[in-house]
Amino acid sequence: MLTTAISPDTRSAIDDLYATYVHLLDGRDYEPWIDLFTDDCVYVVKARENEDRGLPLAALAFESKGMLRDRIYGISNTLFHEPYYQRHLVSNFRIRADDAGYLVGANYLVCRTKVGELSEVYSTGAFRDRIVERDGVLLFAEKRAIYDSELIPNSLIYPI
Amino acid sequence: MLTTAISPDTRSAIDDLYATYVHLLDGRDYEPWIDLFTDDCVYVVKARENEDRGLPLAALAFESKGMLRDRIYGISNTLFHEPYYQRHLVSNFRIRADDAGYLVGANYLVCRTKVGELSEVYSTGAFRDRIVERDGVLLFAEKRAIYDSELIPNSLIYPI
Amino acid sequence: MLTTAISPDTRSAIDDLYATYVHLLDGRDYEPWIDLFTDDCVYVVKARENEDRGLPLAALAFESKGMLRDRIYGISNTLFHEPYYQRHLVSNFRIRADDAGYLVGANYLVCRTKVGELSEVYSTGAFRDRIVERDGVLLFAEKRAIYDSELIPNSLIYPI
Repeated sequence: MLTTAISPDTRSAIDDLYATYVHLLDGRDYEPWIDLFTDDCVYVVKARENEDRGLPLAALAFESKGMLRDRIYGISNTLFHEPYYQRHLVSNFRIRADDAGYLVGANYLVCRTKVGELSEVYSTGAFRDRIVERDGVLLFAEKRAIYDSELIPNSLIYPI
Repeated sequence: MLTTAISPDTRSAIDDLYATYVHLLDGRDYEPWIDLFTDDCVYVVKARENEDRGLPLAALAFESKGMLRDRIYGISNTLFHEPYYQRHLVSNFRIRADDAGYLVGANYLVCRTKVGELSEVYSTGAFRDRIVERDGVLLFAEKRAIYDSELIPNSLIYPI
Repeated sequence: MLTTAISPDTRSAIDDLYATYVHLLDGRDYEPWIDLFTDDCVYVVKARENEDRGLPLAALAFESKGMLRDRIYGISNTLFHEPYYQRHLVSNFRIRADDAGYLVGANYLVCRTKVGELSEVYSTGAFRDRIVERDGVLLFAEKRAIYDSELIPNSLIYPI
């Protein structure tokens, strides 16, 4: 008999959370996207090289839902930037449970499409996330996107 | 206790349907691929820009299994084109059930490989599909591929 | 009632095996990665064109865990090569059970990131694997990576 630490129901719920995350983010539907995080969430986008060496420098580091909301406000209203579409593929979830919730690792690919151009690879990397349950709903308490190429953050506008 | 609207069994069956879809399509095994659709299926490939604005223009729009079969006949027998391999990755399924069946959203990436060339990003986008059950088998009643870059259809030969 | 040949528990365990595979491989954590294979495993990386025509030539072909271990030793200690990061996305698992275990087909994309460069598509293709259970643990008895572009093996250093 095969056994896995994580029940199919839980795996299904975590799959659902990520599917909602990417659909809202790629659809630029930011208000419900923000509500996938806890109030005291940590959101970090960091180079693999820095992560592997234990260095703290990150391209983006937000320490609450309020900071995340500020960023979204900036993108939507004040930042001057060339718009582009994002398309996420998040795969190969490795899920571990502990007393506080779930630790989830996954690989991601984000493709970017600028107006009038072909789609291209924009960022690849891994998510190292912490998920918690609040009132029967799964939320991101920590989301860390560790990207493979240090060239990405030069033009990082939207969340990963 | 975590609950999701969709049972693990149903999710498993839908995963299976998409896996079969991409394996048959990428393997150019078109006859069984066509049989994943209902007789009165709708198959649309449309730019995200048009979809978002509610405009009807689509790169491809077929309104029955017969039209889909005609297209495949064209690709296989009459269309003059440079052949290429396709490779689909379809991820992050968002499944909703209603009385008629399932509404499924998913992100896709299609890579293309021409003879003697490197593999490259060909199209990224989202599927917005309707799946129904017929005699215990899941079939596509509607498949809508909404692509991010308007440059794709210039050379769109095979189905997405 | 929907039925699938493969139980959600088994699907979950197979998902887990692939997630562990890609996380260890992309993280260059080769010792535990090797332990995902049986002692008499077959590991083959082969062009789609040769596979489709039934030709035997493969870019890599190992016939035991010992040969796999030798390759890893070579990569880590003796092969002179420009290092790069790999990032796998493996999706759309098609699972069939037989007396000996499971036959699993899946599509893969590997992106590569060289130092100081952008991430790019490195290899796309399909896995055609055989998985067996040994003492309650799933292992790869055969892993065959069939890649779409014949240009890849020129610079194939790390396993796919």
